[in-house]
Amino acid sequence: MGKIGKYTSMPLNKVKITDTFWSKYIKLVHDEVIPYQWEAINDRVPDAEPSHAIKNFRIAAGLEQGEFYGFVFQDTDLAKWLEAAAYRLETHPDAELEKLADEAIELVEKAQQPDGYLNTYYTIKEPGKRWTNLRECHELYTAGHMMEAAVAYFRATGKKKLLDVMCRFADHIDSVFGTEPGKLRGYDGHQEIELALVKLYEATGEAKYLKLSKYFLDERGKKPYYFEIEYEKRGRTNHFPDALMHNPMYNQTHLQVREQTTAEGHSVRAVYMLTAMADVAALTGDQGLLEACRKIWDNIVSKRMYITGGIGSMAYGESFSFDYDLPNDTMYTETCASIGLIFFAHRMLKIEPKSYYADEMERALYNNVLAGMAQDGKSFFYVNPLEVLPEACEKNAAYKHVKPVRQKWFSCSCCPPNVARLLASLGQYIYTVNDNTVYTHLYIGNKTNVEVSGTGLVLEQKTNYPWDGKVALKVSAEIQKEISIALRVPGWCKNYSLTLNGVTIEAKVVDGYAVIERTWGQGDTIELNMDMSAELIGANPAVRANAGKVAIQRGPVVYCIEEIDNGRNLSAISVPLNSKLRAEYDKTLLGGCVVVRTEGVRTDAIAWGDSLYKPAEATVLPVVIKAVPYCMWGNRTPGEMQVWIRKC
Amino acid sequence: MGKIGKYTSMPLNKVKITDTFWSKYIKLVHDEVIPYQWEAINDRVPDAEPSHAIKNFRIAAGLEQGEFYGFVFQDTDLAKWLEAAAYRLETHPDAELEKLADEAIELVEKAQQPDGYLNTYYTIKEPGKRWTNLRECHELYTAGHMMEAAVAYFRATGKKKLLDVMCRFADHIDSVFGTEPGKLRGYDGHQEIELALVKLYEATGEAKYLKLSKYFLDERGKKPYYFEIEYEKRGRTNHFPDALMHNPMYNQTHLQVREQTTAEGHSVRAVYMLTAMADVAALTGDQGLLEACRKIWDNIVSKRMYITGGIGSMAYGESFSFDYDLPNDTMYTETCASIGLIFFAHRMLKIEPKSYYADEMERALYNNVLAGMAQDGKSFFYVNPLEVLPEACEKNAAYKHVKPVRQKWFSCSCCPPNVARLLASLGQYIYTVNDNTVYTHLYIGNKTNVEVSGTGLVLEQKTNYPWDGKVALKVSAEIQKEISIALRVPGWCKNYSLTLNGVTIEAKVVDGYAVIERTWGQGDTIELNMDMSAELIGANPAVRANAGKVAIQRGPVVYCIEEIDNGRNLSAISVPLNSKLRAEYDKTLLGGCVVVRTEGVRTDAIAWGDSLYKPAEATVLPVVIKAVPYCMWGNRTPGEMQVWIRKC
Repeated sequence: MGKIGKYTSMPLNKVKITDTFWSKYIKLVHDEVIPYQWEAINDRVPDAEPSHAIKNFRIAAGLEQGEFYGFVFQDTDLAKWLEAAAYRLETHPDAELEKLADEAIELVEKAQQPDGYLNTYYTIKEPGKRWTNLRECHELYTAGHMMEAAVAYFRATGKKKLLDVMCRFADHIDSVFGTEPGKLRGYDGHQEIELALVKLYEATGEAKYLKLSKYFLDERGKKPYYFEIEYEKRGRTNHFPDALMHNPMYNQTHLQVREQTTAEGHSVRAVYMLTAMADVAALTGDQGLLEACRKIWDNIVSKRMYITGGIGSMAYGESFSFDYDLPNDTMYTETCASIGLIFFAHRMLKIEPKSYYADEMERALYNNVLAGMAQDGKSFFYVNPLEVLPEACEKNAAYKHVKPVRQKWFSCSCCPPNVARLLASLGQYIYTVNDNTVYTHLYIGNKTNVEVSGTGLVLEQKTNYPWDGKVALKVSAEIQKEISIALRVPGWCKNYSLTLNGVTIEAKVVDGYAVIERTWGQGDTIELNMDMSAELIGANPAVRANAGKVAIQRGPVVYCIEEIDNGRNLSAISVPLNSKLRAEYDKTLLGGCVVVRTEGVRTDAIAWGDSLYKPAEATVLPVVIKAVPYCMWGNRTPGEMQVWIRKC
Repeated sequence: MGKIGKYTSMPLNKVKITDTFWSKYIKLVHDEVIPYQWEAINDRVPDAEPSHAIKNFRIAAGLEQGEFYGFVFQDTDLAKWLEAAAYRLETHPDAELEKLADEAIELVEKAQQPDGYLNTYYTIKEPGKRWTNLRECHELYTAGHMMEAAVAYFRATGKKKLLDVMCRFADHIDSVFGTEPGKLRGYDGHQEIELALVKLYEATGEAKYLKLSKYFLDERGKKPYYFEIEYEKRGRTNHFPDALMHNPMYNQTHLQVREQTTAEGHSVRAVYMLTAMADVAALTGDQGLLEACRKIWDNIVSKRMYITGGIGSMAYGESFSFDYDLPNDTMYTETCASIGLIFFAHRMLKIEPKSYYADEMERALYNNVLAGMAQDGKSFFYVNPLEVLPEACEKNAAYKHVKPVRQKWFSCSCCPPNVARLLASLGQYIYTVNDNTVYTHLYIGNKTNVEVSGTGLVLEQKTNYPWDGKVALKVSAEIQKEISIALRVPGWCKNYSLTLNGVTIEAKVVDGYAVIERTWGQGDTIELNMDMSAELIGANPAVRANAGKVAIQRGPVVYCIEEIDNGRNLSAISVPLNSKLRAEYDKTLLGGCVVVRTEGVRTDAIAWGDSLYKPAEATVLPVVIKAVPYCMWGNRTPGEMQVWIRKC
């Protein structure tokens, strides 16, 4: 691979989302999540864990007296709020919101130290200890989130204050870290700054930021281990008392990044790292990095990912475990991890548009990520189980990290603002442009102005996706020029048809995209009709947790069964492989969704009686199974939930 | 219930075990376990965790300088060894072993403090802190184990030295604890002394020991909580830094013992407590205690016990969790807990001989307990899983307490000596006598002299159990008197026949026992023929871990499938409910055992291909499933193991 010619994201203000399904969520982010999170970081939410994020900045800025409170990375609460607010402002200007953000930025600037350093924990609590515990204390990670916010805010408003603050900090970091004599050869325990520095480079054109990002990636995993060196240097102290910290796999330092072939350790760190690796590969033409990205992507999606797009099979270390180890009840599958998987997929799509990436991006988006937020935007899941028994969460410690209902806010509140920033920037993920082709990865109603091969194109998508497989795409070109429009044929789609201005056409399919090459007029309309039949999906026989089980999927939407619809003890339900699935839109349920019903059976508990064990019987009763979209589970009366259903 | 007329155990020296199946294990205890454990507690086993048990006693006795090492309850290593040695000596006199034991007892006596106190941890390490942390520091528990050893050694040898030592200690404890003014109203966090004091009472006739035992039971769970009072008193310090300690359910103090109806918390503590409750109920006629025993027994065996007789569904707290929560892979099912369940069952059988207790005693003995020890007697399981994937034990922390191979010794070495003392005293569990009836609970070849209704009876059992369901019982009476012989009709047995001196007879079945009332001659022979067909067993539909699954059982023996016989990925195997099971004795396998084979299918992994998820298919290949006794698993090449098999 040579250097990628163009490696740009869709400017958010060029994409106007008009989609019924998504507009609701995006409006929630604006109406509920952003204001709620603002209140939260200002410690004004009753009955919620205090954040202290703003207060920490005020103390660091000398505006207030007090102690630091929160995690070492508490500053990221404000950073992610600012980033989400920026995306909102870019798509929906809002003077009031901008005023809040401006004030917050003012505060951040005041908290910055004369040499450019910015971190309220170290400024307030451990002033002499900067950069002494990179493994555990997230200084560079925290910097990275504020860099992302700075870039987003600059793009949204044109205002440079935060960008300048973060460039000063980046310059300071650049003066501290590197291979040059006298510099620390460190990198962060939690990857994030690597991808943020790429954004800073893209926004400013300053090559040193890209170089610094590449340095952090290059250095990672080299021996002797930097983390052990700094550990000895600081006298073997730990910030977190967990043996986990000494396991190099946990933070992906077990091998140098180019040598890694499997997804290991903390899943959010892994996908943030992979996102940066793809970025740097694209921008520098680094074949080794790209190859590693491809291999690890393949390892994730073919062996270590849940059907919901969740990743992270174990709670300990919020980590990947091993191939095909996908327990449905003890897993972690953090909302943030699936968001990171979307970031990674998006970068790979910008490099090589293959539906192989977009299919899983869509999977994560419509299932694990969306499940992370309540239908009212007011509560969130960290952990997104595929099987829940509320009593087990309460009484068996193996499930204590699993919550049967969404929580209002978390002491470590990474997931809610991560959902907010993803949804507020959703427009970035729909299209990418390579050479003279516009790739449509996601089917989301929108109107977009896109620059392709030197000409402007207006794309207007209309669809009732994900409830319906019909997508209309109106294309209007500025000037007459041959341009390809590539429409993803999703992996789940067995049959589809295409029309152009009402006439059926055939299109060649390249890497999972139906490509229509044409000199576009003013308002040519492509219609893609995808057969969206509900199906029973199986898992690879090596996935022991799903042996003998099936999941219901319709289009990109994975279904689940809930106690409220199917009674108690969902494990007693099974479905024949040939059972007919009936999909029906229910406009009253969960704000409107397609419900899937099918005939199944339930083990007859009354016929069985009280015995705990006795010769096996097969007494079953017929039941109608009612399944609802997984992303909407847990929005009614709390109860059991299950994605995988036994087949009989 | 009035006071139980006779509440005695079979004197061990009256029971001579002649059984093929069990003699092998009992010989292992003598040839391997007792000598190995002696070496271990003397720190002479290379590559094993040091025990330091004997050294602690030497230091406490002033014979050596040094620091205490080990758990607070390290003394129990020696106590359990002495107890096992005593049982061995009672059945098989052995001058050399007795000499070792005598020397050890000498040492124990020297470590005793002038006031009778005996505990090397507090004597060496925290001399001023006696009785300040009953919740965590096991002082009374440790005393209890040495009392059990003392009673056993006295019964075996007639030697009183250790008994006297422990009576002095019991007297001291009695002077410290009680409801009288000035005494501590405490009890131990880990129950054990309660059952030990009953043994001390039975051996000495001293009523105060029974009273003290009852005091500990009566006081437990009263409010305000003693453990919180002592916690405040000692300045809120903890010996173990676990929040668990503050959960009253963990050590069964959430309610007073008579009010408890479910098995909660640490499973070993629970069953040790229940054993003492049954003892005290029987010896004092306490109806409330007995009722609680009955209720909790019922809760265990009908809702919280594995098919292997394992108890303790979760690793956290080595605890019970809740009804029907019986995960097969993350459970704890400690060997000690099943041994404690046998103790409890045995006490209940002495009170009310019902097969309801004996069936589960047998289940625990032939499955979970026996699985705890390797076929060569040299390594042991703490945790006895019903499903193991070795890679998961290594790579997914949810299974890190599960070992795919038995371990040589443990830093907390409770299980190996517990197995040793149980097997060395197995003769106690075969029969009980109530009024004029001898109850046969276990089918184990033996020759026993039993005293019933004032007359002596010689019972001679011959059987090839558990491989064969035929049992011959020769009865010879000293004098002519009407005596009933009651033979358990196991719950697993659907058909059986009885003959007396070769002539078929019918016998009324009372509480699960076929009762033959007769004036016995010299050598009357009863033959019981039990149909021992292998069966597919199901679990109550409420057990979600076993939904759609079956286990193979033949007689009392639960089977499992192992990778070495059935290939990798056992979860891909399933068995039709109507599949015929073929049992066959294989004299070369695992020292000789009955193997069960049946026709099943295996999901065709090659036909499935590489996809992680795709529309469900049902491509299967025929396989012959080979199952081996669960108690013998893990004795060949390490690999996967599974008790519950999917049905198809």
